[in-house]
Amino acid sequence: MENAAEVHRQSIVIDGLIIANWGRELFEDMRRGGLTAANCTVSVWEGFQATVNNIAEFNRHFQEHGDLIRPVRTTADILAAKEEGRTGIILGFQNAHAFEDQLGYVEIFKQLGVGIVQMAYNTQNLVGTGCYERDGGLSGFGREVVAEMNRVGIMCDLSHVGAKTSEEVILESKKPVCYSHCLPAGLKDHPRNKSDAELRFIAEHGGFVGVTMFAPFLKKGIESTVDDYVEAIGYVLDIVGEDAIGIGTDFTQGHDQNFFEWLTHDKGYARRLTRFGEIINPEGIRTIGEFPNLTEALLRNGYSPRLVEKIMGGNWVRVLKDVWGE
Amino acid sequence: MENAAEVHRQSIVIDGLIIANWGRELFEDMRRGGLTAANCTVSVWEGFQATVNNIAEFNRHFQEHGDLIRPVRTTADILAAKEEGRTGIILGFQNAHAFEDQLGYVEIFKQLGVGIVQMAYNTQNLVGTGCYERDGGLSGFGREVVAEMNRVGIMCDLSHVGAKTSEEVILESKKPVCYSHCLPAGLKDHPRNKSDAELRFIAEHGGFVGVTMFAPFLKKGIESTVDDYVEAIGYVLDIVGEDAIGIGTDFTQGHDQNFFEWLTHDKGYARRLTRFGEIINPEGIRTIGEFPNLTEALLRNGYSPRLVEKIMGGNWVRVLKDVWGE
Repeated sequence: MENAAEVHRQSIVIDGLIIANWGRELFEDMRRGGLTAANCTVSVWEGFQATVNNIAEFNRHFQEHGDLIRPVRTTADILAAKEEGRTGIILGFQNAHAFEDQLGYVEIFKQLGVGIVQMAYNTQNLVGTGCYERDGGLSGFGREVVAEMNRVGIMCDLSHVGAKTSEEVILESKKPVCYSHCLPAGLKDHPRNKSDAELRFIAEHGGFVGVTMFAPFLKKGIESTVDDYVEAIGYVLDIVGEDAIGIGTDFTQGHDQNFFEWLTHDKGYARRLTRFGEIINPEGIRTIGEFPNLTEALLRNGYSPRLVEKIMGGNWVRVLKDVWGE
Repeated sequence: MENAAEVHRQSIVIDGLIIANWGRELFEDMRRGGLTAANCTVSVWEGFQATVNNIAEFNRHFQEHGDLIRPVRTTADILAAKEEGRTGIILGFQNAHAFEDQLGYVEIFKQLGVGIVQMAYNTQNLVGTGCYERDGGLSGFGREVVAEMNRVGIMCDLSHVGAKTSEEVILESKKPVCYSHCLPAGLKDHPRNKSDAELRFIAEHGGFVGVTMFAPFLKKGIESTVDDYVEAIGYVLDIVGEDAIGIGTDFTQGHDQNFFEWLTHDKGYARRLTRFGEIINPEGIRTIGEFPNLTEALLRNGYSPRLVEKIMGGNWVRVLKDVWGE
C-alpha cells in the first residue's frame, strides 16, 4: 500500500460536498485526510442575512485556522492550497433560497467567495423544486438566476433537485452543471438517487457528477464499506465517462441529531420530508481523515493511478475552471 | 334615479380589491362613493418587514384620517363602519410572499389585521404559482400555509394564481376561498381571466367570485362603460349563482406609471411579465367616488334591489364571516 499512499499524496484531492460541524478539529481531520479542497456548505434553509452570518463565521475560521485552511475562489487557489499543504475551502450553498428574491444577491455572494450553489434543497423555492416533492420545473425567475450564476461564475448544483427542474437547468445553463453528491438509482431506488438516464443526460450536456457515500442511499445502507462506495463510483463512471466524475462524500462529521432534524424538515422546522435513520459512513471511510483509504480502494479495485487522480480531484479542477473561468 | 341612490345608500357596499395610492384624498373618494368596506392591498412583491412597514403606514392613516376610515377585523366591524359612516379597511395581500418561509408569520399578520391573502402574484413563490407562468401547483409548504390560514381565519384569494394551484387550493382549503377580482374568459380570453369551468368549480366548492372591471381584461378594453361591467357581472352571476358573487374593482387610483412598471415585473424589478397598455376605467365608474353609478346600472339592467344589495356587498359579508368566524 506504499504506492497508494504515494498516489494520494501526489493527487489533488477534492471533496465536492461536505456539510460538517466546522472548527479546528474538523479542519485538522481534513489535513489528516490529505484533502486539497472541499465544497463546504454554508447555507441550506437560511435566508440572505443568516447565510452572510455563516460566511462571516467562516471568515473567522480563515483567520484563526489559517495554518490549516484557506479560501478558494479560483482553481489557482486550489493549486496553491496543494502547494501550501492547506485545505482550500470552496463556500457553497445547498439551496438557492439565500438569494431570496434578489438577482443582485447572486453576484454579492460570488464576491463573498461562494463558488457552487444548489438550485433547491428537497422542496420548492423561488427557483425550482427539490427531489422530495412534486416538481413543477424551473421557474421564470429560476431561469434568470441560472443566467446570472453563469455570468458571475457560480456552478449550478442539482443533487437535491427534482428531476424536471434538473433537466431544465441542464438545458438552460451555458456553463457545466453538476450533481455534486449523488448515487445511482441503478444500485438503490431512492428519491435522492439519479437514474441511468439522468446521469447520462447531464454528462451528454457537459455536466459533472460527484459520487456520494451517504449510507441511507447506498445499496447496503449502514453495512456498506469503502468497497461499496467504489462499486457506486464504478457504476457512475461507466455511464458518465472518466472525465465527468469526481467525489462528493456528503460528510456530516461532528453534527448531532438536532442538525438532522433541521435538515429533514422543510425550511428547517415545517413538515417532515424524510427520515434518514441511523447514519454510519462506510467502513474504511468513516471520517474525513480516512480519505486515503478511498484512493487505496480504487487502486485495489484495478483503477490506474492516472484514473484515480482524475476521480479524486483532477476532474473537479477542470470543470470548476470551466465554470469559474479562472 | 332617486330609487338607485336610495338603494346604494342603504346597501353595505364592499369592494373586494383596491390597490390605490392611500391617503386622505383617496379616503374622501371612498366616502363619496359610499363604500362601506374594501380589501386594501398592503403587499405585492414586498417581503415580511417591508409589508409590516406598509401596515404601520396604514396604522398612521387610521390615526390621522379616523373621521373617514376604520380598521376591519370582523364582519361586526363592517356593520359598525356602515353605522358610523366611515369606510372599513380590510388589510390584504396580493402575494403570500410576505409570509416568507415562516408559517408563524401567518398568525402574526392576522394579529396585525390582515384578512385576505392571495396565494401568489403572477409568478411562482414558495406556496404555488401565479397566472403568468407555467404552474406546477400548490407546494407542500403551500398546503401548510393554507391550513394555517384556515386556522387563524385569513381568506385565500386566487385572482392572480395559476389554474393548477387555484384548483388545488380550492380542494385543500376547509374554508371558502375567492377570486376577489376577476373577469370571465368567456367574454375575453386572457391569462388573468377565469374560464366558465374555473368559475363553476370555485362556486361548487363553496367559494366566492368578486368581479373586476380592470379595462385590459374587459371585452371592450378602455372603451368599456359601466354597462360592460354589468354585462361581466351578469355573465359570472349566471355561472356561480346569486349568493357567491360580489364586486372587486381593482381600482389603482392615484398611482403613476412607475407603479405599473413595478407591478408588471417579477419581484417588482426582474423580467417583464406583461404590458397593460393604457388603463382607463369604464366610463361611469372611473373613480371610487362614482361607485353609486354601479348600483344604478345594475338596477337599470333589471336586477332587483334585493339582488343588487347582495352583489354590492351583502354576499361578501356572509362569506367573510364564514372565513373569519366572526
